[in-house]
Parts: sequence; C-alpha cells; structure tokens
Amino acid sequence: MRTYQPTILVYSPNQAEAYAKCVRNHGFKKVKAAATLEEARKNLPGTEIILGWKFPIEILDESIAASVLWYQSIGAGVDDLISDTSNLEHMTITRIVDQFGTYISEYVFTYLLFILKDVSRMRQAQVERRWDPFIPELLAGKTIGVAGLGSIGAEIVRKARAFDMNVHGLSFSGRQAQLVDRHFTSEEWIEFVKGLDYLVLTLPLTDATKHLINRDILLAMNPRAYLINVGRGALINEGDLVSVMSLGHLQGAILDVFETEPLPEDHVLYTMPNVYTTSHLSGPSTTRGVCQFFVDNLQRYIDNQPLLGVVNRERGY
Amino acid sequence: MRTYQPTILVYSPNQAEAYAKCVRNHGFKKVKAAATLEEARKNLPGTEIILGWKFPIEILDESIAASVLWYQSIGAGVDDLISDTSNLEHMTITRIVDQFGTYISEYVFTYLLFILKDVSRMRQAQVERRWDPFIPELLAGKTIGVAGLGSIGAEIVRKARAFDMNVHGLSFSGRQAQLVDRHFTSEEWIEFVKGLDYLVLTLPLTDATKHLINRDILLAMNPRAYLINVGRGALINEGDLVSVMSLGHLQGAILDVFETEPLPEDHVLYTMPNVYTTSHLSGPSTTRGVCQFFVDNLQRYIDNQPLLGVVNRERGY
Repeated sequence: MRTYQPTILVYSPNQAEAYAKCVRNHGFKKVKAAATLEEARKNLPGTEIILGWKFPIEILDESIAASVLWYQSIGAGVDDLISDTSNLEHMTITRIVDQFGTYISEYVFTYLLFILKDVSRMRQAQVERRWDPFIPELLAGKTIGVAGLGSIGAEIVRKARAFDMNVHGLSFSGRQAQLVDRHFTSEEWIEFVKGLDYLVLTLPLTDATKHLINRDILLAMNPRAYLINVGRGALINEGDLVSVMSLGHLQGAILDVFETEPLPEDHVLYTMPNVYTTSHLSGPSTTRGVCQFFVDNLQRYIDNQPLLGVVNRERGY
Repeated sequence: MRTYQPTILVYSPNQAEAYAKCVRNHGFKKVKAAATLEEARKNLPGTEIILGWKFPIEILDESIAASVLWYQSIGAGVDDLISDTSNLEHMTITRIVDQFGTYISEYVFTYLLFILKDVSRMRQAQVERRWDPFIPELLAGKTIGVAGLGSIGAEIVRKARAFDMNVHGLSFSGRQAQLVDRHFTSEEWIEFVKGLDYLVLTLPLTDATKHLINRDILLAMNPRAYLINVGRGALINEGDLVSVMSLGHLQGAILDVFETEPLPEDHVLYTMPNVYTTSHLSGPSTTRGVCQFFVDNLQRYIDNQPLLGVVNRERGY
C-alpha cells in the first residue's frame, strides 16, 4: 500500500485511459485521464504531476495549473513543450530516455538493408517467376555517420559495428565520442558529412539544430550518399533537400519525420524518386514502455531521488 | 618472379576468363580458361590444379585428368562434387570457407527486418500519400535458431546478438556450441525447433542432412515461426514444406535455395502466400573474393602448407 498518493493527470488524445489504467495498476489511486482541452481544463486544478502527449500547453500558463510541479512527456522530443520557455518555468519537465534506441536502430537497419540489397528487385523477380541471380551490395565496409550520440545514436552505432561498417559520429556535447572511429564536433559538419555513405540524424530539435541540414551541408555530402532522419523533421530544411535532390544529388533519403506532420497529402516528398517516407513510426511510444518509465520515475519523485530524463531548458532537450 | 609454375585450369561457364586473368595478375603464368565441356577436355591433359565452378565432373574419371592433384571449388558447398565419391578420390578437394558469412548474414537480416517491420505497408502508405503510423514489431527479444555453426552460422549469431535476440543453435559437430545461449545436438531437432521464432538453415548438404526438414520437423515448429534456408535446397523436403504451409502452419518461409535450380517457372513456391523466394544470391562467389582465396591457397600449396577448406569426404563437406 502506497502512503503518498500524488494527484496525477494523464493526457493523450487517443491513449489517455490506457496509460491511466497502467499507472493505477501500479498502486497509484489518484489518476485522472483527459483526452480533450475541456477535460484537461476540468481536471487540472489540484494536479501535481502530468503525464502528457500533445498537451494543450497554453493552459499551463493559467492559474488552474498552479499546482503542477512535474510534467513527464510521453516521448523523447520536447521541442513543442519548450518552444516558448515562458510557459513552463515553474515545473520540472522530463522526457522519455533510453526507450527508443532499440526501435529506431531496427528501423534504420531495416531501410538501409532494404534499399542496399534491392529487395524490390528480388520481389519483382518472384512475382514474374523469374530466376534473377545478382550480387547484392554489402553494408560491410560502408561508412555511416551518426549525428547525435545519445542513447538512440549509441544503439545505431552498436548495430553498425555488428555489420562491420566504419562508424563516424558527431555530437554537440562531445559525450560518448569514444564510441565511434572518428568523432566530429558541431564546428565540423562539412568535414563530417563529406566522407559518409549514410548520414543518420538522431539529434533533438533546438535553436542550434533547426534547419541545420541545409543546402551547404547537403551539397557537401557524397552525391551517392543517403540521408536518414529519425530525429525531428525541422533538423532539415526540406526546401533545400527537395531542390538538392532534384539536381540528382544524393542517392536517397529515408525520412520518418517532417517539418509538418502528418505530411500533407500533396507534399512533393511523397512522390520524389529515391525518397522513402514513413509516418513517424521509427521510435513509437508504447504504452507499456512509457508506463514503466513513468512509474519508475514516479517512485524516484516520491523517494526524493533525481528524476530521469530531466530537460535542460538552456540546452533545449 | 615465381619459381614454381603449376599448370592451372580455370573452369566456369560464365566467368572463366575473369578468374584466369585475376590469377595471372598474381604472377602465375600457366593459367588456362575453359567455359565448355569441349574446352575442358582439350585443356585438361597436363593440368595440376583446377579452379572450378559447375565443372563437368564426369571427365575427371578419364585418363586426361590423371595429372590433376587438387580441385579448388568456387563455392562453399561441394555436394555436387562428392555425390559420387568414386570420381575424385585421387585428388584433394577444397571449398571456399570464411567468405560467405558477411553476405549471407546481411541477407538474413534484410529479410527478417523487411517482413517483421512490414516495409510493404510503409511503402504502400507512401504510394497512397497516406499518413499511417503504426507500431512495428521488434526483433529484440525474439528467438532465432541457427542450424549449422560454421563460419556462416557464426556470423548470423554475431548479428543476432547485436539485435538482442535470444540465440539458439544446433550443430552436428558440437563445435562452437559456446556461441549460443542454448546448444542442441543433431539428436534434438524437435526440441530445438519448438522454441524458435526463426529457424535459419546454414547446413551443408550431406547424406545426413538431405530432407532433414520434413513434415515432422515442420509441424513441431511454432505455427507463427519463420523458416529461412540459405544452405542447400535439398535440406528441406519441399513437398512437405508446401503441404504444411498450405495448412496455414508457419508464418512464412524465406528461401534462397531450392531442390531444383533455377526454380522452374511453374513452381508453386513462387506463388504461395508468405513464401519469399530469391535466386540463390545470398552468398555470392565474387570474382575478387574467390580469386584472393584461391591465390592464398595456391601459395600454401607451393609452400607445402596445409590447404584451407579441405573437404572431408566421409563428413561430406
């Protein structure tokens, strides 16, 4: 039996009840669920902790939010929450960490292999009942550059090693530089991208990273390289990407995230040759994973231990 | 300048000149190339060493082959060469070893990920310009069983570890049993296959392994498991596989090798749902890789060192 029972509001447009049920199953009694702005407004007074996804953050400025001390985001990126830092300064914000590396790295290697091995050609031969032996290319020996060496980047690095790739990395903090064969700083983007067969973006979206991948960076890349974005859409200047790829530069782009999501039906990225779009599914927040992370963090909160995934507003993630 | 110049015959229906040129480039002068039965017959007298692919082995019984001491096969499997052991007893047979692990393991993970992640669904959403987020399944935590723990199996095991899979293995010799979480002997097939999500065959074709994967083994597998064959087609009783899968047993089969190759145009395996066929391309013999292996072995031959990849006729590989 838990002695301290903080008042928790779970907010999610689609999954609020599922998350709330899971949290209650861990012995927490005062758990409310909200899926709309109205429900959020109604339940906010007296709430100490929010577990939220796409929360209508504008109401956190109102007096009804005065009791909120901690906001746990359902997700790894918090750019939406701290885009206007005036809102949430009175509360601790945490994000999910160490949950997405497995999913995202599996996604990355799925697409690297799918394209490199020309699975489409193999499938077509089967449809046509044709014997079509050819020598697929090898991932081994190719060079992958991972931008962002947090828990997601580190997991991509680990799998790249198993595929005997050359592994380069760039990070702003310089942490985990020892993971890669060659490490670059944020002053060395051009040098970093030049030597790559694959550039994988796992960076958070901050003032420092927004539209970082622009025309200059793209043109510095090897014309036969691939760009993979599993971070945030706005890391890339999409207009620049479209114009550079229209020139025939880059062998392909694998994009799971976009400046506008859902990607609008009439967006040119859906139809460009050599562009592979997916629907922001590379690092899904599973109910079970998020709930476990939150409940673990909740126990730390109750025990006055430091929370996991605390967002640094200056840094932006 | 090489002092001893053995007479070498390179035989390959399509690549004879390419191999011969590469061998000559390593300083060997007496290298002949043959692509047909007639050319083979003509060039065989006086030949000491054969580098061969799909060689017409029946002529090795003839007196024109009396001078041949060593046959280096272009490939990992030699079941065709020793199917009738009477032919080649007077010569040493070697096969290519340690060259295919990288290719074959990349092929295996290409298909495992392609199917598991439902890339087809993602591609279809793009074609229809539809935002279709869903939670892909994870390879992590699934159980893979590798039958055959030679250099190919060992490389699959290594990559499976990077994907955080549970790794089981079965080998006839018991060598490399320490590589896997659970090792099974050839007496324990039923027990081995029962607990697997993926069964990968990397075994050589011998009297002991022919049609080893029969109805009993297939029915012992988990109905939601996948069967992957990158060894030899005749490891599987294809008739049994077709009938068992027609009952809805097994979630899928990934087949790169077949009892008859090329797989005939009217073969049912081309059109069965959940069967993925490819054209014996998972472990290609590249000219460069084969040539390097052969030249290294040739130097050992000249230096009276033990050759690599010597085939044990009793064992069958």
